[in-house]
Amino acid sequence: MEKYIEGSVIAPKGFKAFGVHCGIRPNRQKNDLGIILSEKQGSAAAVYTQNKVKGAPITVTKNNLKNKKAQGVIVNSGNANTCNANGIEIAEEMCLLMEENFNINNDDVIVASTGVIGEKLSISPIKKGVLELKDKLVSSLEGSKQVAYSIMTTDTVRKEMAVEFQLDGKACRIGLIAKGSGMIHPNMATMLSFITTDCNITGELLEIALKESVDETYNMLSVDGDTSTNDMVSIIANGMCGNKLIDSDNGDFQIFKSALNALNEKMVKIIAKDGEGATKLLTVIVTGGGTINDSRAIAKSVCTSSLVKTAIFGEDANWGRILCAIGYAEANVDVTKVGVSIESNKGKIQVCEKGSGVLFSEEIASKILKEDEINISITLEDGNCDARAFGCDLSYDYVKINGDYRT
Amino acid sequence: MEKYIEGSVIAPKGFKAFGVHCGIRPNRQKNDLGIILSEKQGSAAAVYTQNKVKGAPITVTKNNLKNKKAQGVIVNSGNANTCNANGIEIAEEMCLLMEENFNINNDDVIVASTGVIGEKLSISPIKKGVLELKDKLVSSLEGSKQVAYSIMTTDTVRKEMAVEFQLDGKACRIGLIAKGSGMIHPNMATMLSFITTDCNITGELLEIALKESVDETYNMLSVDGDTSTNDMVSIIANGMCGNKLIDSDNGDFQIFKSALNALNEKMVKIIAKDGEGATKLLTVIVTGGGTINDSRAIAKSVCTSSLVKTAIFGEDANWGRILCAIGYAEANVDVTKVGVSIESNKGKIQVCEKGSGVLFSEEIASKILKEDEINISITLEDGNCDARAFGCDLSYDYVKINGDYRT
Repeated sequence: MEKYIEGSVIAPKGFKAFGVHCGIRPNRQKNDLGIILSEKQGSAAAVYTQNKVKGAPITVTKNNLKNKKAQGVIVNSGNANTCNANGIEIAEEMCLLMEENFNINNDDVIVASTGVIGEKLSISPIKKGVLELKDKLVSSLEGSKQVAYSIMTTDTVRKEMAVEFQLDGKACRIGLIAKGSGMIHPNMATMLSFITTDCNITGELLEIALKESVDETYNMLSVDGDTSTNDMVSIIANGMCGNKLIDSDNGDFQIFKSALNALNEKMVKIIAKDGEGATKLLTVIVTGGGTINDSRAIAKSVCTSSLVKTAIFGEDANWGRILCAIGYAEANVDVTKVGVSIESNKGKIQVCEKGSGVLFSEEIASKILKEDEINISITLEDGNCDARAFGCDLSYDYVKINGDYRT
Repeated sequence: MEKYIEGSVIAPKGFKAFGVHCGIRPNRQKNDLGIILSEKQGSAAAVYTQNKVKGAPITVTKNNLKNKKAQGVIVNSGNANTCNANGIEIAEEMCLLMEENFNINNDDVIVASTGVIGEKLSISPIKKGVLELKDKLVSSLEGSKQVAYSIMTTDTVRKEMAVEFQLDGKACRIGLIAKGSGMIHPNMATMLSFITTDCNITGELLEIALKESVDETYNMLSVDGDTSTNDMVSIIANGMCGNKLIDSDNGDFQIFKSALNALNEKMVKIIAKDGEGATKLLTVIVTGGGTINDSRAIAKSVCTSSLVKTAIFGEDANWGRILCAIGYAEANVDVTKVGVSIESNKGKIQVCEKGSGVLFSEEIASKILKEDEINISITLEDGNCDARAFGCDLSYDYVKINGDYRT
């Protein structure tokens, strides 16, 4: 069905991208400004942080996307442009720079920032950087690589990915770049993801597809339970693959959603595994919940528990902590029916049945937990709603990255 | 007003206590069974964990306290008696042992357990321990010390305390022993507190006083955001100080409440500072909230944030993280009015005003944050509801204690 290909955001037809170091970050080796541009204005949608403290770029992007249209993305790292008196002004100036230099409307711009909070962001390095990028935007692999570099902070791996699938007889592509949890000036776990596609789809349906997918992927991801002020997932669909316009919930829409969701889930696992200090990817799989909200709340609660996360780091099959985190989730659950298994490439072992412990081999459990991708499976027997949450273990390095920065 | 005195739970008239090693824990140097006994049946109340997974002792104690009466406490460490098929049976047998050996009703017993979850608890060492304790209960300092030892797990300091105050012309006393966050088999942050008093007060008013105080103290305490299955705070009031029965919300009730609250707050700070791996006590003080729930939610959110806690550990005045945690609290807040200061014995410094950063001296901030008791003060200007939350920093040792147990 889907085929994973190179080129991330420039893989879909009609997109160019690049990234440069413009001077926001002190380290000249690191890009701090990136642009993604579509040849044509496209349908667009975004999902934003739920935090009541929102970065200025979030406010400006929300406003720009009211008509569900966009043509370009401008993003900087090294400064979150948040909690600054002149934040909105700067974010709007960034959009105007896009208008001036790339012949697009300033309100067709998705603008984003990530970095330290509460330090004023100067427009002058950005002005310089946009000028430089004017000559550099390309639709080659170098473009997607440089723009992906421009949003990396404490990420240890560059995060880009694209998928190709057949839609209405055409080769349709979706690409994305993302950044995970962490900052160059450690501050908070901002998560950004910029998606491009050449699918032909209305803004309304694009928004539905993105929202549904985010609920199952990015919103089920947790590195440390802190929701950043600047989180955003955006998508621009320029229609250039030439499929018949998707304007209703038809078969093509399902195909598009399924490809988008597969791509996002793959990326979310990469982000979780690259969480600050993470040594293991943790996936919590809940089946048989009474409602989808119950299943999601339980999956998230277990995946976010510091005690579960340290146990996974310590490779300890401490299922009492899992049950404890199920118990304090904001969800209806009949504890006497709960089952828990722990699984990895090395096998699967049941540790709890009907809410009570079952005898299990510590030796097998230990072998399973030595792997670097661990699943915790929880059966509720309350209904047929399933959910998954994605996270990582809690290690010494998390404390080091977030506590020791200045010393 | 209040005077802090020695003897904790045996400080009030008519109480005896002791603790022994009966064999639940492998380490013979550590007590694992404790009993507190009142000469007379008294009014009693308790507040329990909100976790839907509850230890069997919680269920049995709840049932026993329906008539708001009790005369004794039996508590073991080393095994939480939770998620075991025969848990209720064992907890009830513990109450029966109290009836048989101390001539009190089995339903006048507060029973509690702390330790590993999901391993069956055998009654035989407890039977032996109760027999031994039968001859050992005393109303001397050695009694309060030994019973306080019997509930310690990863606590690094013994937690006991008592207060004396004048009530209706009589010297009234309240004492308590508590255990904080951690387990000998690291499992979860169970918090237990057993309070005794010789105040003469009805069960109804005792329950109100305890509930109100717990809401302001123990329920505002967080070490790692995990709510244990076995948390409990209980109180027995045997009336032996001879004050006129408190049976209405009168002046004497206010005096009693105020003393109880002062004692609980003092203990909560000790528990927070002794949190697993903690190096600093963190108090978050919120003033000017629109509702008490808003203020409490914000105080707790900041006090529980892993990013705030690691910043405090790293002595980094990273106020962006504080604002971020305010923003994702489940509370109404107008971010543009928020002010934040950081304070310790070395001074106070404002870091944020009206939701934006203010220039501050990093040098002074660093001096303030080097201390081991840090206050974060948050002003909301939305109303007149204040709240405080108590916690600690997040250090390497938290990960070590909770992750490295087996290796």
